Amino acid sequence: MTGNSFGTLFRFTSFGESHGKAIGCVVEGVPAQIPLDVSEIQTALDRRKPGQSRFTTQRNESDTVQILSGVFNGLTTGTPIGLLIENQDARSSDYTEIAQKFRPAHADLPYFLKYGNRDYRGGGRASARETALRVAAGAIAYKVLRHFLKTPFEITAGLIRLGNEKISAWESDEINRNAFFCPDAAALPRFERLLEQTLKNGDSVGAVIEIRANGFPPGLGEPVYDKLDADLAKALMSINAVKGVEIGDGFSAAALTGRQNADEIFADPSSANGIRFNSNHAGGILGGLSTGQPIIARIAVKPTPSIAAPLHTLTTDKTETIIQTKGRHDPCVGIRAVPVAEAMTACVLADHLLRLRAQYHL
Amino acid sequence: MTGNSFGTLFRFTSFGESHGKAIGCVVEGVPAQIPLDVSEIQTALDRRKPGQSRFTTQRNESDTVQILSGVFNGLTTGTPIGLLIENQDARSSDYTEIAQKFRPAHADLPYFLKYGNRDYRGGGRASARETALRVAAGAIAYKVLRHFLKTPFEITAGLIRLGNEKISAWESDEINRNAFFCPDAAALPRFERLLEQTLKNGDSVGAVIEIRANGFPPGLGEPVYDKLDADLAKALMSINAVKGVEIGDGFSAAALTGRQNADEIFADPSSANGIRFNSNHAGGILGGLSTGQPIIARIAVKPTPSIAAPLHTLTTDKTETIIQTKGRHDPCVGIRAVPVAEAMTACVLADHLLRLRAQYHL
Amino acid sequence: MTGNSFGTLFRFTSFGESHGKAIGCVVEGVPAQIPLDVSEIQTALDRRKPGQSRFTTQRNESDTVQILSGVFNGLTTGTPIGLLIENQDARSSDYTEIAQKFRPAHADLPYFLKYGNRDYRGGGRASARETALRVAAGAIAYKVLRHFLKTPFEITAGLIRLGNEKISAWESDEINRNAFFCPDAAALPRFERLLEQTLKNGDSVGAVIEIRANGFPPGLGEPVYDKLDADLAKALMSINAVKGVEIGDGFSAAALTGRQNADEIFADPSSANGIRFNSNHAGGILGGLSTGQPIIARIAVKPTPSIAAPLHTLTTDKTETIIQTKGRHDPCVGIRAVPVAEAMTACVLADHLLRLRAQYHL
Amino acid sequence: MTGNSFGTLFRFTSFGESHGKAIGCVVEGVPAQIPLDVSEIQTALDRRKPGQSRFTTQRNESDTVQILSGVFNGLTTGTPIGLLIENQDARSSDYTEIAQKFRPAHADLPYFLKYGNRDYRGGGRASARETALRVAAGAIAYKVLRHFLKTPFEITAGLIRLGNEKISAWESDEINRNAFFCPDAAALPRFERLLEQTLKNGDSVGAVIEIRANGFPPGLGEPVYDKLDADLAKALMSINAVKGVEIGDGFSAAALTGRQNADEIFADPSSANGIRFNSNHAGGILGGLSTGQPIIARIAVKPTPSIAAPLHTLTTDKTETIIQTKGRHDPCVGIRAVPVAEAMTACVLADHLLRLRAQYHL
Repeated sequence: MTGNSFGTLFRFTSFGESHGKAIGCVVEGVPAQIPLDVSEIQTALDRRKPGQSRFTTQRNESDTVQILSGVFNGLTTGTPIGLLIENQDARSSDYTEIAQKFRPAHADLPYFLKYGNRDYRGGGRASARETALRVAAGAIAYKVLRHFLKTPFEITAGLIRLGNEKISAWESDEINRNAFFCPDAAALPRFERLLEQTLKNGDSVGAVIEIRANGFPPGLGEPVYDKLDADLAKALMSINAVKGVEIGDGFSAAALTGRQNADEIFADPSSANGIRFNSNHAGGILGGLSTGQPIIARIAVKPTPSIAAPLHTLTTDKTETIIQTKGRHDPCVGIRAVPVAEAMTACVLADHLLRLRAQYHL
Repeated sequence: MTGNSFGTLFRFTSFGESHGKAIGCVVEGVPAQIPLDVSEIQTALDRRKPGQSRFTTQRNESDTVQILSGVFNGLTTGTPIGLLIENQDARSSDYTEIAQKFRPAHADLPYFLKYGNRDYRGGGRASARETALRVAAGAIAYKVLRHFLKTPFEITAGLIRLGNEKISAWESDEINRNAFFCPDAAALPRFERLLEQTLKNGDSVGAVIEIRANGFPPGLGEPVYDKLDADLAKALMSINAVKGVEIGDGFSAAALTGRQNADEIFADPSSANGIRFNSNHAGGILGGLSTGQPIIARIAVKPTPSIAAPLHTLTTDKTETIIQTKGRHDPCVGIRAVPVAEAMTACVLADHLLRLRAQYHL
Repeated sequence: MTGNSFGTLFRFTSFGESHGKAIGCVVEGVPAQIPLDVSEIQTALDRRKPGQSRFTTQRNESDTVQILSGVFNGLTTGTPIGLLIENQDARSSDYTEIAQKFRPAHADLPYFLKYGNRDYRGGGRASARETALRVAAGAIAYKVLRHFLKTPFEITAGLIRLGNEKISAWESDEINRNAFFCPDAAALPRFERLLEQTLKNGDSVGAVIEIRANGFPPGLGEPVYDKLDADLAKALMSINAVKGVEIGDGFSAAALTGRQNADEIFADPSSANGIRFNSNHAGGILGGLSTGQPIIARIAVKPTPSIAAPLHTLTTDKTETIIQTKGRHDPCVGIRAVPVAEAMTACVLADHLLRLRAQYHL
Repeated sequence: MTGNSFGTLFRFTSFGESHGKAIGCVVEGVPAQIPLDVSEIQTALDRRKPGQSRFTTQRNESDTVQILSGVFNGLTTGTPIGLLIENQDARSSDYTEIAQKFRPAHADLPYFLKYGNRDYRGGGRASARETALRVAAGAIAYKVLRHFLKTPFEITAGLIRLGNEKISAWESDEINRNAFFCPDAAALPRFERLLEQTLKNGDSVGAVIEIRANGFPPGLGEPVYDKLDADLAKALMSINAVKGVEIGDGFSAAALTGRQNADEIFADPSSANGIRFNSNHAGGILGGLSTGQPIIARIAVKPTPSIAAPLHTLTTDKTETIIQTKGRHDPCVGIRAVPVAEAMTACVLADHLLRLRAQYHL
């Protein structure tokens, strides 16, 4: 109710600030008897970890996760899984300026107006550090999906746009081979050039991420307010710096006619449910329910607000001043948001799979 | 939990299908002692009502709402407000074909795959008829906002794009003067021509709606999963046919640099909290909290899936066939979605206002 | 969140006051394809209906329930079931005095202090009339249980104590043969004499109800805060006039030693899970989970607060006065609470059955 | 939803097993700017700590709590408060027998039947160790109440019955002076004798606890399913070993007439709201709302199920056997349940205070 839990049946509740003692979360809804090793969560976290290339913050967060409960002798017990990540690189001195000034385009000002007392070190609760917990929960969501789904599935996110540079091909295997999580190797030189220039300018840049979930059964989603796309929209929009969410053709659908947008339906004895669509404008979701087609979503990520360039702002006593953020920051938060988007999608799908199971056989 | 409730403290729970006996909802969280007359809800419903121009369905729904509870002697009592709208124009004969065939791009198929037994008349629960209840709840949300906010506010939605035709000016007063809820009078002839042609083609067209909420205090929203923008995204994406949601610059933010995107902050003794921003790329929301600036959102609405043109599809026994929807349908569902988007925004804001009040003074 | 919904996956949300236009509820979580006829709900309601003997209120409520949605061609559709009961016998004149005076031991005073504006006719929202909706929801919960449980089960409630008169035997079949829902025919003359005398005195009397649920599988309940007994306690304590809830030996367990209280466990190849207990002090629940034994609960119902005898009270402007309630009231609300307790138990069990199914096979 | 969270606006979510690495919880809904020192939580925990007398388990749990988040420079920040207690005295060897045998009257069997895989060490998640987190959350709830209530209030629980021995006077100050949390010094010798004898018998004994909350405003509680008494009943019944909950006269109310049970109302200019009741049979709650009178509840706690005396049971492969629990166990779990009951009451009251604030001024 107070905003620190996500999901209904598959659910995680998180706590922690960027530079406090630790961050952590409680993951609920995981059935008993699922093999779970901490290394599976750590592997997911390592993908998101800072400092992996010169294009992500050089902050040295080891991000070592511990399982505190809910797993016994290598198997889940059905009780809540407590996860803890201690904060280690709390170089608070970098952030003293933020204590007195509001960074434009950042959560600083509204937090101050709402709470009065905020932990300003490194963004506090509003820091992207919290997204590590989303990734950890997503790794467990993936295990829950694997436990129940009998056929292959995959959830993949990739960076499809950086500033004005776009990809022209999607090759899933490519995503984990480069520092951008970009599915198009041909786009990498352009992406690199753009980021080099951005860094040189003391600036940052926005991005677009696409998420694809293949192999999911039809019927996931609860009409009419907890539609699958509605829950995905909330999950993805809740990620730091996200300003837009699309399903399928998204905003392009506004320019289509009904005839163009119709994903016509044909018989296909070779498919799981005997059905084939000739297109997927819908992004795999109709009426709020998955159709069995690939589920496609895209999110827009704004440029990192903390930049080296000088910006007008106020001090906490409302005097005009100039701010130049000197801490170590990603020139594009969109890059590290890729595994986070993937994780949130896994959480939503795991939640709706459990909700489906409550009433229907899979 | 099963998807028929929206909101937490300001909350409505709905029931009803397109051609059943009635639709209705239960609105909770309304404080006692608020003057409420059924005509206030009816006025809101009348804006959304079909048959108001040749561009919306000619179905003759009187949409007469009754208040069944929660109001006594003209004042709310603090108990749940039960609303009922009887279905009157249930010309089921128009829909017999749908019972046997799946309309492409419609909820027919996934409902059938999930539930087996669906009320296929007029789309059943997936029909846009349900959105009447969102509008009714929104009218009450508006009263709750009015009850608590001491300063003027307004929530306005307008059709800013129809297919490829866009507006070039926003004049709030214009919105209620035309059948398109369009804020730009100059765009009307182009909108009309496009819809005439679309009707002639037996086709439909998509649209984009912008929602503006002015006069709201900072601090609305609950970090980190119930962010104001996350809850808006869910609210808006849950509306029938919506495929995309943007806050502020939305997808355009992906193309900006951090410098361009920064809404710089200045002192302004004449403003309520002494603060002025030089721009509003953020759409009034930072870190999931309202900033006090106008809250701006946009949604993409896909073209009406039910069209007169022939489309390939399957029968319920999975035989290939052709479908041509003959019922009375809107050539652009986006038009009637305008008051729905406005209503859902009011509901989200009322909910977060109550959530804020629980812990802080306004 | 605002208290008008009960349950999580099997869930109902109600509205309506004693003397408004209608009361109703929305029942969610019912799987599709379950045969459901309105007569099944009506039959349940008729058991609770007033005016069935001289010992229950002579108010002539026909309590005719309508299904407004969620059922199509005799089968549930998986969408919310809207139920409506119109209020017919709204003899408001009986209640004018209550508008000005607070009935002691009644909700009048705290409602007035909290809401200021209350619908005082017949108790408004606090009236036991609302319990009709619990009974209606319970009838549907029963259908859900029947849909999923493959083996016989039953939920039975009986009046085991009236004032100081107690039963000495439990014969389930007897319960529906008398106006007291009493499982012991031998107790009836004593119960009748006590109520005759109570009526003569213009007074009322309290009661104890026992609920027995047999045939339920082990594992229902969610540790540690949504234990099955915790949810039963909430469900039963939320019924009007209930002041105590016990599970199994309840308060008597306080006087036992661990040895006496131990339900020892033996092997029993003839039982479903190969287990036999030599006693059931636990009332079928251990650690918040059902054990497979009969689930036993008891509730204490206070005497009807509205009595003919004169009592000291205040007027709404806080002047001391005397009140004598002249309306038609049950001398023992405990009697009509029997089917309500049974219904709430069915709702809790259906909810936990769905919750169990979400993660485990039954 | 999966049972590890308690409350709505004031809410805590817990994790952890008796002998895992740590237990912890996330406390949400705490307003910013409240002074909070870890010692305030530790003090509350120390009251509940084992090993404080020869009548509670000699297990050496240091129960040192850490605040991991949500507090900055001594003040709450409005973000979730993460609490952690490391498990130190994990002498697992004491529990090897439990791995193979089900303790009668304990959660062992239903956990095994439901989850298959349970952490059997020390009762795992079903262990009373989890109640430390309730006490910690309760200490924070108390701070929230103190923050918002302008007038004095107190929440006190006391042991009023041990087996068949009862108190005959309630002296709040006495409660913290003895090892029983007993409000009647005169009862102590009888309580001690009974426990000595019980220990000698290798047995255990049940208890009754009374909770009194004074100084709370009227209007707390949400009709009709989240009544204050319904939420208290759930909160208290969810505590380990509790088998019954009463409000006010509770089960005794069943024996009263309406005239006896009526708490008559008088004018009293000296009281806060001008009202005086001549009695408090209702326990301060009518129609689910607090009346302003002292809120009174009682709970029955069954005897500790783990006893030294031999009991018939089964092994996990369903062979009949005998079990004698040799671990260190409280002869009466009711004693240490006293601060837990107090804490849960504080949590319920803090939650309903926030819920009231959302819509009304205090």
